[in-house]
Amino acid sequence: MNLRLHGQSFVAGRLSRGSGHVFRAIDPQNATALEPDFHEASLDDVDRALEGARSAFADYRATTPDARAVFLDTIAEEIMALGDTLIDRAHAETALSQDRLTAERGRTCNQLRLFGSLVREGSWLDARIDRPIPDRQPLPKPDVRRLLVPIGPVVVFSASNFPLAFSVAGGDTASALAAGNPVVVKAHEAHPGTSELVLSAVARACERCRLPAGVFSLLQGRGQVIGGPLVQHPHTRAVGFTGSLGAGRALTRAAAARPDPIPVFAEMGSVNPIFVLPDALKTRGAAIAEGFVASMTLGVGQFCTKPGLLFTPASSDADALCDALARRIEAARPGSLLYPGISERFNSGVLAVGATPGVSRLAAAETSVDRARTEAGAHVFTTDAQTLLEQSSLMHEVFGPFALLVRAANVAEMEEVARALDGQLTATVHGTDTDLAAAGPLIEILSDKAGRVIFNGYPTGVEVCHAMQHGGPWPATTDARFTSVGSAAILRFVRPVCYQNAPHTLLPPELRDANPRGIWRLVDGELTKATL
Amino acid sequence: MNLRLHGQSFVAGRLSRGSGHVFRAIDPQNATALEPDFHEASLDDVDRALEGARSAFADYRATTPDARAVFLDTIAEEIMALGDTLIDRAHAETALSQDRLTAERGRTCNQLRLFGSLVREGSWLDARIDRPIPDRQPLPKPDVRRLLVPIGPVVVFSASNFPLAFSVAGGDTASALAAGNPVVVKAHEAHPGTSELVLSAVARACERCRLPAGVFSLLQGRGQVIGGPLVQHPHTRAVGFTGSLGAGRALTRAAAARPDPIPVFAEMGSVNPIFVLPDALKTRGAAIAEGFVASMTLGVGQFCTKPGLLFTPASSDADALCDALARRIEAARPGSLLYPGISERFNSGVLAVGATPGVSRLAAAETSVDRARTEAGAHVFTTDAQTLLEQSSLMHEVFGPFALLVRAANVAEMEEVARALDGQLTATVHGTDTDLAAAGPLIEILSDKAGRVIFNGYPTGVEVCHAMQHGGPWPATTDARFTSVGSAAILRFVRPVCYQNAPHTLLPPELRDANPRGIWRLVDGELTKATL
Repeated sequence: MNLRLHGQSFVAGRLSRGSGHVFRAIDPQNATALEPDFHEASLDDVDRALEGARSAFADYRATTPDARAVFLDTIAEEIMALGDTLIDRAHAETALSQDRLTAERGRTCNQLRLFGSLVREGSWLDARIDRPIPDRQPLPKPDVRRLLVPIGPVVVFSASNFPLAFSVAGGDTASALAAGNPVVVKAHEAHPGTSELVLSAVARACERCRLPAGVFSLLQGRGQVIGGPLVQHPHTRAVGFTGSLGAGRALTRAAAARPDPIPVFAEMGSVNPIFVLPDALKTRGAAIAEGFVASMTLGVGQFCTKPGLLFTPASSDADALCDALARRIEAARPGSLLYPGISERFNSGVLAVGATPGVSRLAAAETSVDRARTEAGAHVFTTDAQTLLEQSSLMHEVFGPFALLVRAANVAEMEEVARALDGQLTATVHGTDTDLAAAGPLIEILSDKAGRVIFNGYPTGVEVCHAMQHGGPWPATTDARFTSVGSAAILRFVRPVCYQNAPHTLLPPELRDANPRGIWRLVDGELTKATL
Repeated sequence: MNLRLHGQSFVAGRLSRGSGHVFRAIDPQNATALEPDFHEASLDDVDRALEGARSAFADYRATTPDARAVFLDTIAEEIMALGDTLIDRAHAETALSQDRLTAERGRTCNQLRLFGSLVREGSWLDARIDRPIPDRQPLPKPDVRRLLVPIGPVVVFSASNFPLAFSVAGGDTASALAAGNPVVVKAHEAHPGTSELVLSAVARACERCRLPAGVFSLLQGRGQVIGGPLVQHPHTRAVGFTGSLGAGRALTRAAAARPDPIPVFAEMGSVNPIFVLPDALKTRGAAIAEGFVASMTLGVGQFCTKPGLLFTPASSDADALCDALARRIEAARPGSLLYPGISERFNSGVLAVGATPGVSRLAAAETSVDRARTEAGAHVFTTDAQTLLEQSSLMHEVFGPFALLVRAANVAEMEEVARALDGQLTATVHGTDTDLAAAGPLIEILSDKAGRVIFNGYPTGVEVCHAMQHGGPWPATTDARFTSVGSAAILRFVRPVCYQNAPHTLLPPELRDANPRGIWRLVDGELTKATL
């Protein structure tokens, strides 16, 4: 594979050198700039990308489900064909390990294929048919048939912490394309080379499948420069974003201020609390500490599902957990963070927590960090539940290998704190059968706060499956009704349309009496695959 | 039935005389104030209603599906028990005919029962189960199970034009309650007595079903006074609204400006264009005119689905349609509008259209209107497609018995205009088989603009069924992904939660292996009612 990167945006089939602003990726492991220069997209590029997407929409939405699935499979194939070139560049741009990146590439390709298989099977369209009753009194009942249709161009903002699975051809892109929408991706400025490589795979797939070039564009550049114009472009119909609360909020406000507001699906992270119940603490406190440290330091703590709060009862049983936790934190080796900006925010976040009255340091990695390698060491602080309740800033996410252990007087106080938490992607409970038999109220509170409730496990590792819910109440995400991981993510980028008394020949195949695709349909309120 | 109205708000089980501001309903048929005084709710009432709703949430969400269905059925029963008292008061407050109100009451009760049956059956919960693979390499696959859960207190703003079906116990309330959410309704100030009567039915049902009082509150008063505080209250989790674009936009902005933005489901009306294709025009132009006038004057033109734009080819075949249309409009009897504010907006809307260059009057009702009876007469103006494209204000809704007939050079020009339209609740095509065989492009454009596409019919009359989609792109609604009519309306007031590796006893019954409720579930991607 040829690594000659051009550094340009790909705008509806054409390369563009953009506005003139130039930047480079930084290798966080040695703080040096990587070749080549990248050219920031211009506002004209934004406009051409969305005009191209809008023009391509009619042809793309008209593709057969099989053609769309082949497109997604071909993207996966072309990503694999990039081989080590992709892994090496991603490693250089993010400092994530080759093993992790190889696994992430597998996940990315599996996601593409999952959406392909979903689209091939077809029942996701939620087809509904209510048959007519022409002689109903006082008025005839019409024939009404409904299914989900694509909405038009979707703008996707790449995440820094998943350069493959939540970036150029990640879950947002895969689900939007699967639904029948053209996509315009804003590459993350920390991994522009990785983005260009994946773009090349998508562009080749587009060509091989003879799809219009406007189906996919990639814009390089800074979010604060081209983000607003992308969200506010009249042709943009929805936005997918994974990143910080600040950026997510800004995009959401820009979308709400449009003459025609559009949905923004922003996943903005959370603190992912873990609650250790008394009997579990007593019987396996040290093991929980071990699992906790592994989860909070995985990928140098740079997961949106990193557990950032650990609650234990304030009993002497907590000592074993604290000891084991301190030992493992102290032994943890520092790791390079994704890019210098994250490093700065991590350091200031840790300092702020440490300076909060009532908070003390429980443990920190003993190996000193090498700032020239953008490194961060693991930190765990500790406090009590009342301090946490009084200092709500302690409930905010610190992105990186950081956590706060909170001693609660008892389970009732855990419930009190749980009620005060913001919305979360996940919430976890560790408990024995004895603990859990009494934990109903806590679990109800957590179900009300989080999108995913985990038992005796850890929140990192988000399974890509049909039942996954990766999205919780604000500020975890902007729209808790939807998930950004798993097959249900496709539901973000469609809307229902119904046809009343339509002639059969004008109905989409999925709504015709003969059910030629053999999908599940809700006919007069009953699910069936039958023909009518 | 005793008609002694107290004029107060019902706040989590207690009556409140509110802030001191007092108002009365006006009988539009004689422009006189109706007894008694109504007391506007105070900001304290807003707070107590939402505190009550929040407190009631835990108990209410824990009710069995059957208990919730019985509650909805009991509300319907209590509404029917109000008898003519309800119909008479609604007639006095809205001038809608007793027949229409009787039919609307039937629809309201059917809606309540429809949601009851949906909740009893249970498959609407979209239960999904992905079974574990403990020995998967490199990591075990967890057990993940997901279903839809209620979100918490829902605020509902009543509509003026459906004093029963889109008001106190209308579709928004029924679907929010069915989903397991407490509801706080803001009564429409034009029919406070009707609202109080329906409230009494809901409150009795609440008592009979022994539900906590906070499950339902009704606040009387003006939207511009208590609307903002209701939307911005920290406990409010979602908003349902049916009304004008201006009010819908204001509520949407208030919701977006919260520290934690919440969804607003606002249905704000549309112009519901009808396209008459050449062969249909030739073969049955006069019949189409007849159906059109019946639809646009139904309920004095006060439906959000009233057709406000009628497109015909500019051929001599249009003469028969125009003649028939003019005859019927001229013969149409004026009717009393819902309240004086609507009358003012109707009159100024008609004046503005009439004063637009390139627009001329086609026909108007010949009987003079009686302003003392808040009457409006039917008006149809005419213009050509280019004028419409140049004067986009002509594409805005005029609420009431008004329409604009637009002559288009040919079907290609109809497509051009269709592309320029705003989002719509509905779009309608009249065509013979010959017409429709060539109408693919037009229908594709309309599917992209509207939530419901109707063939050879009229948009008024929104069937309450499973396949109905009442909601289209902005500005028809704020969120085209959802419907406010039909069983899918329940999906507005829930969100998915998934449970990872949960002990069986802690799972909701719907997610347990035994499938005790016998619902449809997506197990490893396959729909089944099977036990596991």
